[in-house]
Amino acid sequence: MPTIAVYAGSFDPITLGHEDLVRRARAFVDTLIVAVATNSSKQPLFTLEERTQLIRRTVADAEGVRVEHFNGLLMDYARSVNASLIIRGLRAVSDFEYEFQIAMMNRHLAPRVETIFMIPSVETTFVSSSIVREVAKYGGDLTGLVAPVVADALREKFASR
Amino acid sequence: MPTIAVYAGSFDPITLGHEDLVRRARAFVDTLIVAVATNSSKQPLFTLEERTQLIRRTVADAEGVRVEHFNGLLMDYARSVNASLIIRGLRAVSDFEYEFQIAMMNRHLAPRVETIFMIPSVETTFVSSSIVREVAKYGGDLTGLVAPVVADALREKFASR
Amino acid sequence: MPTIAVYAGSFDPITLGHEDLVRRARAFVDTLIVAVATNSSKQPLFTLEERTQLIRRTVADAEGVRVEHFNGLLMDYARSVNASLIIRGLRAVSDFEYEFQIAMMNRHLAPRVETIFMIPSVETTFVSSSIVREVAKYGGDLTGLVAPVVADALREKFASR
Amino acid sequence: MPTIAVYAGSFDPITLGHEDLVRRARAFVDTLIVAVATNSSKQPLFTLEERTQLIRRTVADAEGVRVEHFNGLLMDYARSVNASLIIRGLRAVSDFEYEFQIAMMNRHLAPRVETIFMIPSVETTFVSSSIVREVAKYGGDLTGLVAPVVADALREKFASR
Amino acid sequence: MPTIAVYAGSFDPITLGHEDLVRRARAFVDTLIVAVATNSSKQPLFTLEERTQLIRRTVADAEGVRVEHFNGLLMDYARSVNASLIIRGLRAVSDFEYEFQIAMMNRHLAPRVETIFMIPSVETTFVSSSIVREVAKYGGDLTGLVAPVVADALREKFASR
Amino acid sequence: MPTIAVYAGSFDPITLGHEDLVRRARAFVDTLIVAVATNSSKQPLFTLEERTQLIRRTVADAEGVRVEHFNGLLMDYARSVNASLIIRGLRAVSDFEYEFQIAMMNRHLAPRVETIFMIPSVETTFVSSSIVREVAKYGGDLTGLVAPVVADALREKFASR
Repeated sequence: MPTIAVYAGSFDPITLGHEDLVRRARAFVDTLIVAVATNSSKQPLFTLEERTQLIRRTVADAEGVRVEHFNGLLMDYARSVNASLIIRGLRAVSDFEYEFQIAMMNRHLAPRVETIFMIPSVETTFVSSSIVREVAKYGGDLTGLVAPVVADALREKFASR
Repeated sequence: MPTIAVYAGSFDPITLGHEDLVRRARAFVDTLIVAVATNSSKQPLFTLEERTQLIRRTVADAEGVRVEHFNGLLMDYARSVNASLIIRGLRAVSDFEYEFQIAMMNRHLAPRVETIFMIPSVETTFVSSSIVREVAKYGGDLTGLVAPVVADALREKFASR
Repeated sequence: MPTIAVYAGSFDPITLGHEDLVRRARAFVDTLIVAVATNSSKQPLFTLEERTQLIRRTVADAEGVRVEHFNGLLMDYARSVNASLIIRGLRAVSDFEYEFQIAMMNRHLAPRVETIFMIPSVETTFVSSSIVREVAKYGGDLTGLVAPVVADALREKFASR
Repeated sequence: MPTIAVYAGSFDPITLGHEDLVRRARAFVDTLIVAVATNSSKQPLFTLEERTQLIRRTVADAEGVRVEHFNGLLMDYARSVNASLIIRGLRAVSDFEYEFQIAMMNRHLAPRVETIFMIPSVETTFVSSSIVREVAKYGGDLTGLVAPVVADALREKFASR
Repeated sequence: MPTIAVYAGSFDPITLGHEDLVRRARAFVDTLIVAVATNSSKQPLFTLEERTQLIRRTVADAEGVRVEHFNGLLMDYARSVNASLIIRGLRAVSDFEYEFQIAMMNRHLAPRVETIFMIPSVETTFVSSSIVREVAKYGGDLTGLVAPVVADALREKFASR
Repeated sequence: MPTIAVYAGSFDPITLGHEDLVRRARAFVDTLIVAVATNSSKQPLFTLEERTQLIRRTVADAEGVRVEHFNGLLMDYARSVNASLIIRGLRAVSDFEYEFQIAMMNRHLAPRVETIFMIPSVETTFVSSSIVREVAKYGGDLTGLVAPVVADALREKFASR
């Protein structure tokens, strides 16, 4: 049976750390669904449409990757697409604590969907969407943090503010 | 002198993890006051009255347990009810960090009131009120997370939204 | 290409936590090699032969599982069996710190072998081989910690001391 | 070349922990700039002017200390004042995680400005501006948490609310 | 029913942090048994007799405190003395991780004996028996780390080496 | 007054992470003493003389760096060379916990010597002397972990075993 995995997040915007994880996960699953969560309580910087487009343009070359979005509980979505794996990136201990709790709850809700954790490349361990937005807001250099197309989108977004 | 302990929180709503701790603490103190904090900056899902009622209905069988509420500093409240112990549940490292800091500050404010930490049952280590509210919001299964009466209250709350 | 994964450790002896992870990992890889490390500096309680036999007898029903042993660097072994995945169990933050460092080093040594982390069932989060040996040493109850066949082996081992 | 260091924060208000760090850092740098960040998204309790004045009045006796404020990225500010060091206080592991990530990003943005971490005196490890504001809000005792002049300012601030 | 609590450890030697915890715990239990573990694999600096005497001489004034020793599993000992509580000191996150695992295992072995955690006074958070032995070994100042009678014993011990 | 700093450790052997820290610290102190600790209880792989030579040959180009060794308490040594700073590298949270405790104790022993923490370059966060020895023992690739001269010394050391 082919393995379907879900990699969910806000991707506001996708960073080089996210891209790295997509490529790593792609190597051992048949289909990787990058799933943009739309039910966050926080007001995103980019619209759902923009976030989806930026993901498509940065990981377009990775075969077997699909970009979708979902609303509601991740586990309901995972079951609806027949995923057997949830992929999560871990950068730090504080990530781990929270992820551990969420993974336990998700296993409680959907025992047959397994959560696995991966570590991004060492060069991206300090990169997060929120730090990237902060750097972009004040015109800082985005090289090494996001793909060029994302850097352009960030500059445009803050220029228009 | 009989031991009076305070177990404070938002209890929005009370979970099986909270219930477990109430029963464990009850075993070695004379009076356990479950104290609902009313001065949180966050808008609660349940009113103070509802939260108090749900606690009463779930731990009603535990002798020596009183349900109250307070506003202001926990230590002022603890002294006002002659408590010598503050009971806190610990689930994870990030809990611990914050709890450690709060306990130190509370000792600074009220040196004669001791804070002790307890660990909930392993089945409830991943259960928190905020995760429970998230699961309920999207119609997820609440079995094993909260008592049936609390599950009913959650369903009713979200149905009316 | 079929996915081959390595789950390495001392397994001195295999616990219910290890067994749980073997079964979870088996669900999404084609071949899972349980690899007993023989180059530990610590003197093990069970011989390599005994440890291998106990693993075989506890996870014998899991299809696609092979039990082997190795000496030297894990990454050299992983490449020698064409594994693309290393599976690690994570129980706690201190685990994570060490595992993170090892995973980074392993990626440095073998960039094409990915390390993924999994969480054991909540009932086994506190179970480790060293705690199990300690409990067995003093005749404590091993139910819920190891399989019956392993409990027998532990009792026999300490009886003969 | 004389060493210029920046110690940045919200200082809302300055605590005895902050004061302790200023005096410790002053001992090994030539100029220490206490830099009040003005671009926080949170609404501060004290105005920029008030926060600056309270810092001046509490560390006025420390030679070589300058109090300034900045908007934008810390690293841009650090370069604009020719600083070679950023000083950060560490109280706890959760502090460390976040600080580590920020320090990595700051090194990425400004490789020649080094971040160093210091530990406050043991008596102030549990003191933070947010806890201090909470204690003051409910009329708790501020002795040992902030300087007398800051305690007065806090009492005045909450009295006028 | 009177509350009997066990505070177990190597106490090699007892520090001011241990003493602080004994006094704090004494305030809310009827009998506190300070239980010296004799089955450690490590070679202690002080003999069991010496460790017991140093505990007696430092907490002799605390009413309701008994000093004993035990071999084997702590939970077997706790049940043999009808204890309902195990008291543990927590100084740091890494303490907590290990303690959490041990507490879970102990609850598994003896469900009716509860483990509670306490925080030592802020002045002793950095004091441990092993650090104290290291300081004493090189003739460092022991003031503020151990009681005078323990400092004397340490000096005598290392002088005779 | 010129700033003298001590960077102490076993350096068994010096890694690229150590070298990175030496160069970073050198930028803001007048004299940096790399101090090899000789009183470790562990049997080192390299002799004191070998460790000292490897440090000299790898950081020989850094002006103002001295390589020395010491026995006994670090704080006694720091005072004997008139150091006002102790420099420590932090790679991970578990490092931090231990370092925090040591720094507190050192401040207790020598209040005028300040401990500061620095973060190594992101490429070396996973490199430690013990992992390097393990890799070398099994003939793994040492590129990116230690300087070429240290890699040669490691190969020679294990070849002669």
